[in-house]
Amino acid sequence: MIGGSLGLDLRAAGYGVLGVSRQQATCDRALARGVADSASLELASLAGADVIILCTPLHVLGQTVVQLRPHLRPETVLTDVGSVKGPIVAEIAPLWPNFVGGHPMAGTADQGIEAALSNLFQGRPYVLTPTAQTPELAVERVWAIALALGALPHRCTPEEHDRAVAWISHLPVMVSTSLFQACRQEPSPEVRRLAQQLASSGFRDTSRVGGGNPELGQLMARYNREALLTSLGAYRRSLDQLIAQIEGEDWPGIAQTLAQGQGDRPLFL
Amino acid sequence: MIGGSLGLDLRAAGYGVLGVSRQQATCDRALARGVADSASLELASLAGADVIILCTPLHVLGQTVVQLRPHLRPETVLTDVGSVKGPIVAEIAPLWPNFVGGHPMAGTADQGIEAALSNLFQGRPYVLTPTAQTPELAVERVWAIALALGALPHRCTPEEHDRAVAWISHLPVMVSTSLFQACRQEPSPEVRRLAQQLASSGFRDTSRVGGGNPELGQLMARYNREALLTSLGAYRRSLDQLIAQIEGEDWPGIAQTLAQGQGDRPLFL
Repeated sequence: MIGGSLGLDLRAAGYGVLGVSRQQATCDRALARGVADSASLELASLAGADVIILCTPLHVLGQTVVQLRPHLRPETVLTDVGSVKGPIVAEIAPLWPNFVGGHPMAGTADQGIEAALSNLFQGRPYVLTPTAQTPELAVERVWAIALALGALPHRCTPEEHDRAVAWISHLPVMVSTSLFQACRQEPSPEVRRLAQQLASSGFRDTSRVGGGNPELGQLMARYNREALLTSLGAYRRSLDQLIAQIEGEDWPGIAQTLAQGQGDRPLFL
Repeated sequence: MIGGSLGLDLRAAGYGVLGVSRQQATCDRALARGVADSASLELASLAGADVIILCTPLHVLGQTVVQLRPHLRPETVLTDVGSVKGPIVAEIAPLWPNFVGGHPMAGTADQGIEAALSNLFQGRPYVLTPTAQTPELAVERVWAIALALGALPHRCTPEEHDRAVAWISHLPVMVSTSLFQACRQEPSPEVRRLAQQLASSGFRDTSRVGGGNPELGQLMARYNREALLTSLGAYRRSLDQLIAQIEGEDWPGIAQTLAQGQGDRPLFL
């Protein structure tokens, strides 16, 4: 989905796009949809590429780079699109010095080449996470790609990226899914059914990311475990404080907590 | 906002609507917008009403009924639109036996007569919470009004209503606002700013109800304190379990928790 969307926009921006997939059907669809100029099952077909954007799942990035490496010229720039950067950069940078960690922050709930969309990255953040060892020229090449997509490039360390996305992406998933686990604890079947019947936009929005793809959520927790646990610890302290305010009937305190939320929210929008 | 919207739809359905407000300007706007057939500052103007729908804030409902009572015929049915029912029914039913607790579950973030909308209740739940002492005829009259609005009437006890809305309305507000308090604990200003820049639809949706009107949120907590604390306790247990799963690297367990959320969510939509 991300790879196909990148192909659509980069071709539109004048880049030549070579696609590689493990499945011939995906190659065929990529050509039919205009996602790539050519498409192949062979990693060797990328030997002449200037930049390679790895769009595999997180857990097969390393093995992909090991397979790809024998075919590449040293000046080829590698980048990825993974949603966690610390462990990825730690794994790939030693394999390929010209690697720049990347995270274009866009997507939909759909997957696969058929879900590819034009202009998906327009106005969206595109985070690059070079280390002190990453060649500046490599960063510049990927930065130029982000600009060609109409995205808003950001630059930070892998650790800063992972802490930031723990707050605004991974923590909300865990907070949201826990709503369902909590509702399961209602002992009365009548009240449970009534709650389901009465749920409206407030519950729908708050529970949306917690009701998403379980595999993606589990991978977030796995790859960003440390930063996520830090965020969850802070969240639990905040929740405990609010519970203590309600138990203690500290109504001005609760109003102040809620007013801070109302004041903070525009900073994130 | 709720009173004005009820007026628009009930007039359209053929009911005669008498409006009462404490402000002449509101009466004038009500007539100008076609919200009522007549509008007055005087509670005595409601002496001939068959049904009176009290749309004041929760904390002045009781005193409004005390002021209204001398003007009414015993057969007049009173109902309200408050978002909590247990304490309201306990307060009003002894003052007026022909009272039926009501909660039309619709609204927007806007307030006041200018925010009144036609068809606001169409397809939305309208909960009635009679007690064993409530006359059945009174329930039938308010039920008919809910049907005339195109709403979906539900009937349950005040306690069942309050437990159900604690799960799907009040708990989400507290869960959502705690996200902002948690993010405030990030020690690095750079990471805090990056998180704000990277926040997108996931954070926006999960944080929406927590960034709403603080006064409304505080009243929810105040009037539905007991049911909300029960829901918050269950929520904290669920969150603690998820944190323990991540700490213990129980990836199959986390995937199962997330899959349950994905499976439960359609029950609430």
